[in-house]
Amino acid sequence: DFEKALDEVKPAFGASVETLEAYLRHGIISCGEAFDHLRETLSMLVEQVRASEKTPLLSVVLEGPVGSGKSALAASAAMTSDFPFLKVVTSESMVGFSEQAKASQITKVFEDAYKSPMSVVILDDIERLLEYVAIGPRFSNTILQALLVLIKRQPPPGRKLLIIGTTSMTDVMESMSINEVFNVSLHVPSLRVDEMVKVMRSLDVFSVMDIPQAVDLLTSIHSKVVPMKKLLLWVEMARQDVPEGQKIPLARWEQVLRDLS
Amino acid sequence: DFEKALDEVKPAFGASVETLEAYLRHGIISCGEAFDHLRETLSMLVEQVRASEKTPLLSVVLEGPVGSGKSALAASAAMTSDFPFLKVVTSESMVGFSEQAKASQITKVFEDAYKSPMSVVILDDIERLLEYVAIGPRFSNTILQALLVLIKRQPPPGRKLLIIGTTSMTDVMESMSINEVFNVSLHVPSLRVDEMVKVMRSLDVFSVMDIPQAVDLLTSIHSKVVPMKKLLLWVEMARQDVPEGQKIPLARWEQVLRDLS
Amino acid sequence: DFEKALDEVKPAFGASVETLEAYLRHGIISCGEAFDHLRETLSMLVEQVRASEKTPLLSVVLEGPVGSGKSALAASAAMTSDFPFLKVVTSESMVGFSEQAKASQITKVFEDAYKSPMSVVILDDIERLLEYVAIGPRFSNTILQALLVLIKRQPPPGRKLLIIGTTSMTDVMESMSINEVFNVSLHVPSLRVDEMVKVMRSLDVFSVMDIPQAVDLLTSIHSKVVPMKKLLLWVEMARQDVPEGQKIPLARWEQVLRDLS
Amino acid sequence: DFEKALDEVKPAFGASVETLEAYLRHGIISCGEAFDHLRETLSMLVEQVRASEKTPLLSVVLEGPVGSGKSALAASAAMTSDFPFLKVVTSESMVGFSEQAKASQITKVFEDAYKSPMSVVILDDIERLLEYVAIGPRFSNTILQALLVLIKRQPPPGRKLLIIGTTSMTDVMESMSINEVFNVSLHVPSLRVDEMVKVMRSLDVFSVMDIPQAVDLLTSIHSKVVPMKKLLLWVEMARQDVPEGQKIPLARWEQVLRDLS
Amino acid sequence: DFEKALDEVKPAFGASVETLEAYLRHGIISCGEAFDHLRETLSMLVEQVRASEKTPLLSVVLEGPVGSGKSALAASAAMTSDFPFLKVVTSESMVGFSEQAKASQITKVFEDAYKSPMSVVILDDIERLLEYVAIGPRFSNTILQALLVLIKRQPPPGRKLLIIGTTSMTDVMESMSINEVFNVSLHVPSLRVDEMVKVMRSLDVFSVMDIPQAVDLLTSIHSKVVPMKKLLLWVEMARQDVPEGQKIPLARWEQVLRDLS
Amino acid sequence: DFEKALDEVKPAFGASVETLEAYLRHGIISCGEAFDHLRETLSMLVEQVRASEKTPLLSVVLEGPVGSGKSALAASAAMTSDFPFLKVVTSESMVGFSEQAKASQITKVFEDAYKSPMSVVILDDIERLLEYVAIGPRFSNTILQALLVLIKRQPPPGRKLLIIGTTSMTDVMESMSINEVFNVSLHVPSLRVDEMVKVMRSLDVFSVMDIPQAVDLLTSIHSKVVPMKKLLLWVEMARQDVPEGQKIPLARWEQVLRDLS
Ligand SMILES: Nc1ncnc2c1ncn2[C@@H]1O[C@H](COP(=O)(O)OP(=O)(O)OP(=O)(O)O)[C@@H](O)[C@H]1O
Ligand SMILES: Nc1ncnc2c1ncn2[C@@H]1O[C@H](COP(=O)(O)OP(=O)(O)OP(=O)(O)O)[C@@H](O)[C@H]1O
Ligand SMILES: Nc1ncnc2c1ncn2[C@@H]1O[C@H](COP(=O)(O)OP(=O)(O)OP(=O)(O)O)[C@@H](O)[C@H]1O
Ligand SMILES: Nc1ncnc2c1ncn2[C@@H]1O[C@H](COP(=O)(O)OP(=O)(O)OP(=O)(O)O)[C@@H](O)[C@H]1O
Ligand SMILES: Nc1ncnc2c1ncn2[C@@H]1O[C@H](COP(=O)(O)OP(=O)(O)OP(=O)(O)O)[C@@H](O)[C@H]1O
Ligand SMILES: Nc1ncnc2c1ncn2[C@@H]1O[C@H](COP(=O)(O)OP(=O)(O)OP(=O)(O)O)[C@@H](O)[C@H]1O
Ligand SMILES: [Mg+2]
Ligand SMILES: [Mg+2]
Ligand SMILES: [Mg+2]
Ligand SMILES: [Mg+2]
Ligand SMILES: [Mg+2]
Ligand SMILES: [Mg+2]
Repeated sequence: DFEKALDEVKPAFGASVETLEAYLRHGIISCGEAFDHLRETLSMLVEQVRASEKTPLLSVVLEGPVGSGKSALAASAAMTSDFPFLKVVTSESMVGFSEQAKASQITKVFEDAYKSPMSVVILDDIERLLEYVAIGPRFSNTILQALLVLIKRQPPPGRKLLIIGTTSMTDVMESMSINEVFNVSLHVPSLRVDEMVKVMRSLDVFSVMDIPQAVDLLTSIHSKVVPMKKLLLWVEMARQDVPEGQKIPLARWEQVLRDLS
Repeated sequence: DFEKALDEVKPAFGASVETLEAYLRHGIISCGEAFDHLRETLSMLVEQVRASEKTPLLSVVLEGPVGSGKSALAASAAMTSDFPFLKVVTSESMVGFSEQAKASQITKVFEDAYKSPMSVVILDDIERLLEYVAIGPRFSNTILQALLVLIKRQPPPGRKLLIIGTTSMTDVMESMSINEVFNVSLHVPSLRVDEMVKVMRSLDVFSVMDIPQAVDLLTSIHSKVVPMKKLLLWVEMARQDVPEGQKIPLARWEQVLRDLS
Repeated sequence: DFEKALDEVKPAFGASVETLEAYLRHGIISCGEAFDHLRETLSMLVEQVRASEKTPLLSVVLEGPVGSGKSALAASAAMTSDFPFLKVVTSESMVGFSEQAKASQITKVFEDAYKSPMSVVILDDIERLLEYVAIGPRFSNTILQALLVLIKRQPPPGRKLLIIGTTSMTDVMESMSINEVFNVSLHVPSLRVDEMVKVMRSLDVFSVMDIPQAVDLLTSIHSKVVPMKKLLLWVEMARQDVPEGQKIPLARWEQVLRDLS
Repeated sequence: DFEKALDEVKPAFGASVETLEAYLRHGIISCGEAFDHLRETLSMLVEQVRASEKTPLLSVVLEGPVGSGKSALAASAAMTSDFPFLKVVTSESMVGFSEQAKASQITKVFEDAYKSPMSVVILDDIERLLEYVAIGPRFSNTILQALLVLIKRQPPPGRKLLIIGTTSMTDVMESMSINEVFNVSLHVPSLRVDEMVKVMRSLDVFSVMDIPQAVDLLTSIHSKVVPMKKLLLWVEMARQDVPEGQKIPLARWEQVLRDLS
Repeated sequence: DFEKALDEVKPAFGASVETLEAYLRHGIISCGEAFDHLRETLSMLVEQVRASEKTPLLSVVLEGPVGSGKSALAASAAMTSDFPFLKVVTSESMVGFSEQAKASQITKVFEDAYKSPMSVVILDDIERLLEYVAIGPRFSNTILQALLVLIKRQPPPGRKLLIIGTTSMTDVMESMSINEVFNVSLHVPSLRVDEMVKVMRSLDVFSVMDIPQAVDLLTSIHSKVVPMKKLLLWVEMARQDVPEGQKIPLARWEQVLRDLS
Repeated sequence: DFEKALDEVKPAFGASVETLEAYLRHGIISCGEAFDHLRETLSMLVEQVRASEKTPLLSVVLEGPVGSGKSALAASAAMTSDFPFLKVVTSESMVGFSEQAKASQITKVFEDAYKSPMSVVILDDIERLLEYVAIGPRFSNTILQALLVLIKRQPPPGRKLLIIGTTSMTDVMESMSINEVFNVSLHVPSLRVDEMVKVMRSLDVFSVMDIPQAVDLLTSIHSKVVPMKKLLLWVEMARQDVPEGQKIPLARWEQVLRDLS
């Protein structure tokens, strides 16, 4: 009956792979030990769910600053797991839904997952799923309570589930006891100087000689650490108008940083 | 008519035993006097409900840190009571229900219990039943008021009821006057060093010689006391990749603790 | 037409007497002057409603710690009044009702009372009727407003009504102006040492010689004053396993107190 | 057409006179200059509404402690006005109504009043009409807004209206800007010593010689000033059991005061 | 099509003129430079809307203490504008309406105004339109948001609109950003001594010789500045009982002030 | 199919151009480097969306004081982009809509934009879209959550989208995390002295010699910096009554400033 379960979940799988790929549009750039270790730990959790009989359910939350690469890491772990059911729960596909509708949509994803022998469910941007806003603060307690239960609920006998959450609001997660229901919590940091250097080398848009100074400009104009997503955006902006095949001049780089950050 | 009542409640009974067994998946590991005394006190309460004519209703709340074993202790007391009606009230079976629906579901369980000559009702994770969240704070007053009344309401003449609640939010229970409506309150603690040693021996996954150092690593990397559930999870993770029949090397144990806690 | 009114209210009367009896399951144990005086004052109020033409409506609130005997005293006053209409308004019979439904149920009781020449209405556990909880705080303003009006509203000409409220939250009553609408407020205290001695003698479960020490244990392990209901429960627990006809040994008494309080 | 309007409002008038009489059950006891002056001021306002063409609408709020006699004074002013339309807006006739229903009921009274050439509308216990409670605080803004507008709204040309409000929460009225919409505000005080003496003489229940001491007991056991309604209630209680035609002995008076206040 | 538009709005116009006249029952008494300047500034705004092509929309808020004459000034400016569409938005005609109903009623007035070539819309007592109350504070955000947009929204090409708001809660307007959406804000003050003298002369109810002392009494018993409306009311009250053709004696004036203020 | 998509969006385009033109009624007056640089940066963003394959979605928020010219700058950038789909999301066209209706209207605009190969969506006055008010504060979380997702959601493959938001409440945007979801944030300042001089020269309403003094009056009576919109309004008011072809006399300018600001 695993075969049959597998068949049932196929369409769902297909749909989500698209989403997962979107999260990886810019790929995963190797940028140092910290990130490599994160990826290995995620792999280990995947393997434990696959292998261990005593831990059919594991849950891990990736927390870190906006744009640090949490969603991409989650997507990458899911893609490489080879589990037959992969699904991203994201508010992007639920714009304008009522709290109730969102909660039942989320519940539905878990119930679909329970039908597959092995599943990964990504709860992307948990604060957004919860409709959280710091003023008030306000959020959907209906959705929160559903998550608090779903993250802890054991799948039916014989089924295995890895839940990967992402959030950039660690404090909020704590004040809502969400961190407590996850088995493991991993920090995804912004890039430090040496990591930025690695990323820039890998992007190959600056002349190698310019890279130290480019990073210098970045940290002095902006801040000591920079999230991956921002770095990629600014490089893309600076590349604007630079003729095909040429590198970004430092002057232009400085201009972009001063105008936009 | 007791016979008839008994028949009526059978299906409910069956269903709940499954849940109770799920709570005991890892069994009850004997880990010291404190836990043994807790179990005896629970037994005594069961006996009093069974025997005394003047106390047809008793209620006890088990409070203690997350993962300390509250639900397992409650389930174990219920299983060993041999009462004909055993039922767990848990939010796991009410995900996405409205407040009203939850309150009436809970009420229903009590009314079913009143039909049996002797019953145990477990109110598992009361804060979750109440949809409690510290921000605000918010919770369902509808459900709270139902519980405050149901926990104190005498069963009909000739029927007997033991109510066991569990919670990891003692302060919250107090600010909601829930502790006041329970006749008895028992504390379920995290494991101390000597108890961890006992548990590890019983698990038989470390070489006996390594256990003191394994516990040492645990308390220095994590904290002085550790809840049962966390200990079992980390051991399970450390066992990962360790060849069948071999013990967990201390190095791997340390690695797991550093990565995940 | 008094006769006819009387007939109409009979069923209601019957139903409530049952409830009243339930409140008196453990009887009223004579335990000292303070309690005797309370009972006399209540009798005097009953007599005034019966006799005076100028005070067809009187209202009294019994306030005191949880378990001090408020409900039992109210029930006892009602039972001995011999008024043809006696009714307890309690949240136990309204679990899961909406605010609106509760308010109209309560109003209905008063309107039934107005049909009888003389009535006692008990508003038991006013904070529970109001769905009060200290966090927030929250409560039903719909029910509160109904009570604030009903407690002050004169019955129709020729009808007489005594209202007895009970509460263990005196502060809350004040902040809601409920104390102001009651004509009289009486305090029902926990038992002091001499009163506990009297109660224990009357219960006849300790050897007379042991009573002073039993009370001593109680006040040193628990607290200087103890509510009647708790005392009765602990005695009942200590009696557990004590062979028929024997007294409770002090050692067992101490054990029970240490385990449960 | 005044004749016709008069006819239309008759039934309403009849109904309310009953209520007005209920407010005056204990009559108006002459108790000193302060109260006499209050009654004269109210008469003057009645006359101004009757006579002046430039002030077809006047509004006055009577504020003072609970039981000081506000409702009785308002009722008395209305009864002696001889205006063809008299109406009391009281929450007693709206128990269990929704906010909307109360607001529209109140509006209806004003619209009925506009049909009569001269009207008095009493808004009794404004805080109760508003469903006010200090915790929160909570109240019905729907009803408040209706009152704020209705109290200021001019009657149609040729119609005259006197609005008398009563309240024991002066601070609340101010924080809601209700005091601002009334043209005049009058304070109804509790009784001082000399006034209590006058009232007791007029009641003729103490021997004349005992009155100074009776008042003394009252002020020393209770407080320096006492609202009229409380004084009347305690006297009534003390009269209990005193044989027909005899006066209340001071000892009994003291007993009642000690037991109930 | 201007002609046609004109025809369409006629009935609305008629209805509102009545309201405007009611605001001016006591006329506009000339009482000094400050008020004259206010009236001129309002005229200038009317002229600008009429003449300038670049400012088809102007908005002005009159703010000042309760009773200072804001509504009368607004009404007077509207009446003298000769614009074909004049409308007062007042909560007096919307008692008991829901928030939604009020918001759509207000929107309707603006849409009617857009049909006329030149319009004045008076938003009278903005805090009352918003159902504002300081406790909480509470107000209708639905109505507020509608006003914030409507006051800034340009009329269709070729149509002109002057919006005059009145409020006695300047602080509230600021905290709601309402002051920001009005182009101009004018302060309407209470009367100072010299202005009161002027008003009293113009009213001709005191003997000319008495006026300085009458004003003196007013400022010493009440306060240094007095709103126009209160002054007119007290004079009216003092005139009560004064025989036709005679002036108000100072003694009576003092009596009225002491009784009522 | 781009052709077809283009056709589909035409009407929407037409409608919005009208709105865009309304925003530019007073044109864009060149007033200094700061504004020129702002306009260039906006152009650069337009170009990047058009050209880059890696950034099909860019979002920029213009923040600055009320009336500083944010909406005009956004409209001008959109008009000059030549993108086939231009749309302004403004609360002016949603007065009286429910939160849900507004949220779905906004979502609809984005979904229409996704059908066009290249689009500009202007979110004008974000605080107004959110129904924000500082008291409370209150706002529509439904609309906020929709915006937070829509601003970050990638258009479908091959489609490009530039989002321009405007707001005068930078702090509020931060406390709601709206600033975080925009890629770029640009500040639109009020005018400084030299910029005011430029604007006044360009308006040609003062005699050139008077301009320095006119600006002096403005900064001394009003404040050091003045938003563009206010300056234009006051000039327009001062022009009132000035005969065709003549310049505004300084005396009149001073009068207007003193009366209105
Ligand atoms: N080593 C890396 N780890 C993570 N992301 C990487 C890495 N290298 C490149 N990327 C790219 O960086 C981007 C990270 O963006 P991503 O959306 O995952 O961040 P995020 O932390 O989820 O952001 P947000 O807080 O906005 O949700 C992705 O486009 C991804 O392809
Ligand atoms: N002596 C013991 N007491 C309790 N649980 C034990 C014991 N020995 C082993 N266990 C196992 O430990 C686990 C305790 O988890 P349990 O869910 O009961 O904890 P909990 O306190 O209810 O956690 P939570 O706070 O998350 O609800 C169970 O799997 C149980 O089988
Ligand atoms: N003298 C007494 N006065 C009151 N109750 C007594 C007395 N003697 C014995 N009892 C018994 O004590 C118990 C008192 O419980 P009761 O429910 O009346 O207390 P309570 O104050 O209403 O408690 P709660 O605060 O929980 O409502 C009853 O079972 C009653 O039969
Ligand atoms: N001089 C008096 N003034 C007012 N009331 C008087 C006077 N003399 C006797 N009474 C009686 O005193 C009682 C006053 O009660 P009343 O209900 O008017 O007080 P209240 O201030 O409205 O009370 P509450 O604050 O509860 O509404 C009435 O029964 C009235 O008949
Ligand atoms: N110069 C004047 N300016 C304004 N009102 C005047 C003047 N002279 C006489 N009045 C009269 O004074 C009264 C002012 O009352 P109005 O209702 O306009 O005050 P308001 O400020 O709107 O009061 P509120 O704060 O209660 O709304 C009106 O009756 C008006 O006819
Ligand atoms: N250089 C300029 N930049 C911006 N606006 C200008 C400029 N020159 C003239 N204007 C005019 O100034 C006005 C600016 O008003 P606009 O509505 O754009 O300001 P805003 O900042 O959006 O105001 P609000 O905060 O009220 O939304 C427009 O009428 C515009 O035509
Ligand atoms: Mg992400
Ligand atoms: Mg548990
Ligand atoms: Mg009770
Ligand atoms: Mg009253
Ligand atoms: Mg006004
Ligand atoms: Mg704008």
